[in-house]
Amino acid sequence: MKSYVIWVLSLFLIAACSSSTDQTMTTGPITLVIHGGAGRIVKGELTPAKENAYRHQLINALEQGFKILEEGGESAQAVVAAIQIMEASPLFNAGKGSVRNRDGVIEMDASIMEGKTSLAGAVAGVRTIKSPITAAYKIMTKSPYVMLVAKGAQRFAAEHGIEIVPPTYFHAKSTDQSSPSSGLGTVGAVALDRYGNLAAGTSTGGTPKKHPGRVGDSAIIGAGTYADNRSCAISATGHGEFFIRQVVGHEISARMKYRKQSLARAAEDVIQETLKPIGGKGGVIGLDRAGNIAMVFNTEGMYRGYMRESEPPRVYFYQ
Amino acid sequence: MKSYVIWVLSLFLIAACSSSTDQTMTTGPITLVIHGGAGRIVKGELTPAKENAYRHQLINALEQGFKILEEGGESAQAVVAAIQIMEASPLFNAGKGSVRNRDGVIEMDASIMEGKTSLAGAVAGVRTIKSPITAAYKIMTKSPYVMLVAKGAQRFAAEHGIEIVPPTYFHAKSTDQSSPSSGLGTVGAVALDRYGNLAAGTSTGGTPKKHPGRVGDSAIIGAGTYADNRSCAISATGHGEFFIRQVVGHEISARMKYRKQSLARAAEDVIQETLKPIGGKGGVIGLDRAGNIAMVFNTEGMYRGYMRESEPPRVYFYQ
Repeated sequence: MKSYVIWVLSLFLIAACSSSTDQTMTTGPITLVIHGGAGRIVKGELTPAKENAYRHQLINALEQGFKILEEGGESAQAVVAAIQIMEASPLFNAGKGSVRNRDGVIEMDASIMEGKTSLAGAVAGVRTIKSPITAAYKIMTKSPYVMLVAKGAQRFAAEHGIEIVPPTYFHAKSTDQSSPSSGLGTVGAVALDRYGNLAAGTSTGGTPKKHPGRVGDSAIIGAGTYADNRSCAISATGHGEFFIRQVVGHEISARMKYRKQSLARAAEDVIQETLKPIGGKGGVIGLDRAGNIAMVFNTEGMYRGYMRESEPPRVYFYQ
Repeated sequence: MKSYVIWVLSLFLIAACSSSTDQTMTTGPITLVIHGGAGRIVKGELTPAKENAYRHQLINALEQGFKILEEGGESAQAVVAAIQIMEASPLFNAGKGSVRNRDGVIEMDASIMEGKTSLAGAVAGVRTIKSPITAAYKIMTKSPYVMLVAKGAQRFAAEHGIEIVPPTYFHAKSTDQSSPSSGLGTVGAVALDRYGNLAAGTSTGGTPKKHPGRVGDSAIIGAGTYADNRSCAISATGHGEFFIRQVVGHEISARMKYRKQSLARAAEDVIQETLKPIGGKGGVIGLDRAGNIAMVFNTEGMYRGYMRESEPPRVYFYQ
């Protein structure tokens, strides 16, 4: 049995215990789960300094997002706060650390969804927005739309006070060795707030040397991001085209709703049995309303972690 | 019982009879179903001349698409052929008849998916492509991508020999009374070919006066377009944001796969019970591998029709 299976199962048991001892809420404890991309992350290949840098940023993202939940904030706000930290770091392929496309420019995608309202927001192909997840959140909360792309999305962001940055903001780190070269490093978060509401969000720079205008699953509600209080919140990372075709987020949700699978089982089946055989490399993080966590991937590793009340943040890289 | 329910049930019975008497194939007979948008289409409000114009174009689309199936073509090719006819007509809000956005320009979305391979293609926010469905098909068949947007999509189209047209191609009809003013008129098709393979496609000009960059469900695999040989092919039309949030195409498929609902029941439940109560106006056409058809909507009417072997094309407007 692979170690990632053990991870999922043990987290499932931990979560089951936590929620069954909770006397004050009908749903699980406030919880935040994040990822920083899946891919070739192999023990021994990361230097201790690099490991420390990733650990530091993941813990920072968990703490900033979790603080929102502790203060009574909503799950979508916690998702945004956690993702903003990773977007601002050059370590991940999102926001500042985004990879360049075929033309040598960056084009970013992001999306967010609330499990209670089924409201959602998404941007794709944006070049000037410092924090694409913040723009997606604004679309969700301040417009009748779900998805805005390219220059139209940038105009919406500017009109709504979202921070616009020059290309040099992104390019500054482009030759740094710490920039991702493989497209690894999409970031995402799923959260459960005090009110029992789930939310999910994802942000990415896409694949390196992609055709201009290419949009991956990180911008697609149902694929890279999905949340429904009746099932789960999901954020994906991986080879986006496969995740779009398999409608990964909604597929995991549907298996929970209609096949009565657990989150762990549904996520495991979709990542290992549907995606892996067809070459769909990547992973997902998931969270259900009882506080059960899944962090599943079919690659060598996935930057990931979670945080719950009365526990320190926990961060993992490898299988 | 509303008349659309009777439509669905009677078509279901017709289809069941057809496929049970078919001796030569394990799947249903070659079938093409199309729509030209759902909305306020009320008997008595359309002039006889207008009715004739719509009937003529829908029959033309059915015949051109069906011809591909008869000649042994693939379902995705039939979907493209049928949609191309409607994109070239000023009667529908797709291609030539696309409505203008807030800036007074048109931005079109389209997508296509194959049920056998799960391959898919999509464009969004394109302004210069004569037939967006043709560009989506090219992305599906000639690139590793699923979705390209805005200028990047236009460049891909130009690089691949897709016809590019000046803005006047679309604007010529913008003041014509026959142009749709309500955003009504998204077009779509689903097909079953001789090889038992399903495909679905959708094309639209989006909502009138939309924010530049706004993308609706017609471009989203899983929402406005979805196909899986194990369940169904779906093309949607309606208030796109609701269709994205409910992941309508994949939701209908999941209900068939995991709840063992019929196509008719799954489509009916999603359109009438999930979408209608939350204000999600619109409809879907659907087709399964046995040749069962669904044409379901929660609006006053939907331009729609279907064609099967040894039957004339059939076209309907109202409930």
